[in-house]
Amino acid sequence: MDFTIDEYKMRINRTKQKMQERGIEVLIITNPSNMNYLTGYNAWSFYVPQFIILTIDEDDPTWIGREMDANSAKLTSWLKEESIVPYSDDYVQSEFKHPMHFVADFLIKRNVEQKTVGVEMETHFFSARFYKEFIWMLPETKIEDASVLVNWVRLVKSDQEINYMKKAAKIVEKAMQVGYESLNVGARGCDVAAEIMRAQIKGFEEFGGDYSAIVPLIPAGEETSAPHMTWSERRYKKNDPVIIEIAGCHKRYHSPMARTMVLGEANDKLLDLSKVINYGIEEVIHCTQPGMTSEQIEEVFRKTIKKHGIIKDSRLGYSVGLSYPPDWGEHTVSIRNGDKTVIEPNMTFHFIPGIWYENYGCEISETIRITDNGCETLANFPRDLYMKK
Amino acid sequence: MDFTIDEYKMRINRTKQKMQERGIEVLIITNPSNMNYLTGYNAWSFYVPQFIILTIDEDDPTWIGREMDANSAKLTSWLKEESIVPYSDDYVQSEFKHPMHFVADFLIKRNVEQKTVGVEMETHFFSARFYKEFIWMLPETKIEDASVLVNWVRLVKSDQEINYMKKAAKIVEKAMQVGYESLNVGARGCDVAAEIMRAQIKGFEEFGGDYSAIVPLIPAGEETSAPHMTWSERRYKKNDPVIIEIAGCHKRYHSPMARTMVLGEANDKLLDLSKVINYGIEEVIHCTQPGMTSEQIEEVFRKTIKKHGIIKDSRLGYSVGLSYPPDWGEHTVSIRNGDKTVIEPNMTFHFIPGIWYENYGCEISETIRITDNGCETLANFPRDLYMKK
Repeated sequence: MDFTIDEYKMRINRTKQKMQERGIEVLIITNPSNMNYLTGYNAWSFYVPQFIILTIDEDDPTWIGREMDANSAKLTSWLKEESIVPYSDDYVQSEFKHPMHFVADFLIKRNVEQKTVGVEMETHFFSARFYKEFIWMLPETKIEDASVLVNWVRLVKSDQEINYMKKAAKIVEKAMQVGYESLNVGARGCDVAAEIMRAQIKGFEEFGGDYSAIVPLIPAGEETSAPHMTWSERRYKKNDPVIIEIAGCHKRYHSPMARTMVLGEANDKLLDLSKVINYGIEEVIHCTQPGMTSEQIEEVFRKTIKKHGIIKDSRLGYSVGLSYPPDWGEHTVSIRNGDKTVIEPNMTFHFIPGIWYENYGCEISETIRITDNGCETLANFPRDLYMKK
Repeated sequence: MDFTIDEYKMRINRTKQKMQERGIEVLIITNPSNMNYLTGYNAWSFYVPQFIILTIDEDDPTWIGREMDANSAKLTSWLKEESIVPYSDDYVQSEFKHPMHFVADFLIKRNVEQKTVGVEMETHFFSARFYKEFIWMLPETKIEDASVLVNWVRLVKSDQEINYMKKAAKIVEKAMQVGYESLNVGARGCDVAAEIMRAQIKGFEEFGGDYSAIVPLIPAGEETSAPHMTWSERRYKKNDPVIIEIAGCHKRYHSPMARTMVLGEANDKLLDLSKVINYGIEEVIHCTQPGMTSEQIEEVFRKTIKKHGIIKDSRLGYSVGLSYPPDWGEHTVSIRNGDKTVIEPNMTFHFIPGIWYENYGCEISETIRITDNGCETLANFPRDLYMKK
């Protein structure tokens, strides 16, 4: 187990507190990050429906999932065997049967189908069909949208979580260095991605790496205008700019980082842009402290880069930590205008003020931790535009 | 572009034919595999809402996505610039605005909001909230469940698709060999996963690898009872059994493969189980031919292993090909009792008759292609239980 039983129990209690505030008596969790957070459950089984059911007046939640995954629940979670409830394989990808029928039957058996039920309406793991089948089975049940209820519980990290994220930061430093070293004129995107992923997963002799919720994003040349390009078999050319956005991951905890480099000499536009972004990042690291709101961090950055004539209108960052594909963001706090979340110690953000134009872009980012009186970067890696001549 | 414009146009026409059969006039596609299949669009941007809108009487579909991803659409798809319609960044992960509002407005502007609209109700990329927001915006619109409409169009592969899957098969052969070589007593799961992933992504000098929709699944020891475990930092012990389930991937096309090995001497139970599974696989490869139904393939396997006293009650395989995380399956045909799909040449399946007991399991699998008069495995790799002494 990656955390003490006490830490899991505390997470359950905090979740129940939020349920109480919202009048939710039964919570159905399908987001694998939230499932892991509350129970430790960890397997690549989230491509089929799986659930944690938490009722407000029971101590232990219940895992419901595919029969062949029940052993994963026994091996990775702290749940008792009677709290692991498998559904048979004919529920999988069937036109007629659906795992939500099984969940509805489970609620009926437990006599909680008349209670107010919270479901995660906005996650990749609770499709429109889940919702429709649920309503069809239990038309009288009051449903509450609890999309990011547990995500908000995850916002402030424990010391052990910070410890894992710092290990992930060590991994991302190493993987970024490997990226710099393997990126050469004539190499292919797939060659570079292969070396980066090897470094991400192998980690160090003292601690290993886990798979990152997003694969390496290494757009090159004109592709640097498009931040979510992965890689191709194209060979790098002299003076290609390349963005590397990757994360280290340890026990599902992420520390992402982005850097921009040029395989030769950078043109002035890109060099200037990188400097302005770095002024902004430095100012944000200098100014950020507990008690500020998220949008005040955005304001610091906006005002700094505006002095140099640069404007950015997409969000600057987001809360980060425990995650599964397809995203390492926590979907709670966004560092942008209008987000009034008050910043507290041990919140962690991926601060990524990337700027993309029609034919090029620049990304430089840090994962930051809010400390008692300021903030720190988890990794330690030069932020300058790197020119490899 | 990975395919000719003609091939993309043919896919669009086949999709429209299926729309016509179902009375669907406007199709909203959110599954990234289906988006790629119809337009070529390829980026790790599917963690935010994105759409292909296909109307029955227009030639070209429209891409709708996040502003910063519009350049990815320009760089990877065959769509004209006017068919690439970005939404602004404040729609992302907001409590108030939702990209489905933007899509609804788009339909209204095009005067198609009164038509019958198909949506993919059961995909990881169309959550319950998408559905609710859509109904809220367009309460009068008739919605049809088009969950796997395009997936069914993908079922029979073109020659170019088979070509990519055969390259993926070469990659998986190499990655499996690397797995065998790096799996040693004293090595950690993360060490082995790192070498496998490097081999998967690097590919060969002649063609490179793409990221697989599922990371390496390499459960060891007791974990072999749980097929979807990934890896840990635990060190392998003498006589550990290990399952390796991985795919090669080339241009998003997958050829998965599973093998089982032992770091020493296998016990009789596991050795016998592996032999029976192999008898079943051999018989299926020998008997499978076009014109059979999917459930007849299951029957061949079931009867073969039953002679040896083994029973398997979960599905034996599924259609495979183009895919994005979290799953490389196509969610159409399942090789199981009750599936009456008639098998045709150039269908491709991951045939994976894994068997898992309380404390151990065995997986041996092949990706098979249906030929004109039989079937072939895409990869060529010994299926015997491998004992590394």
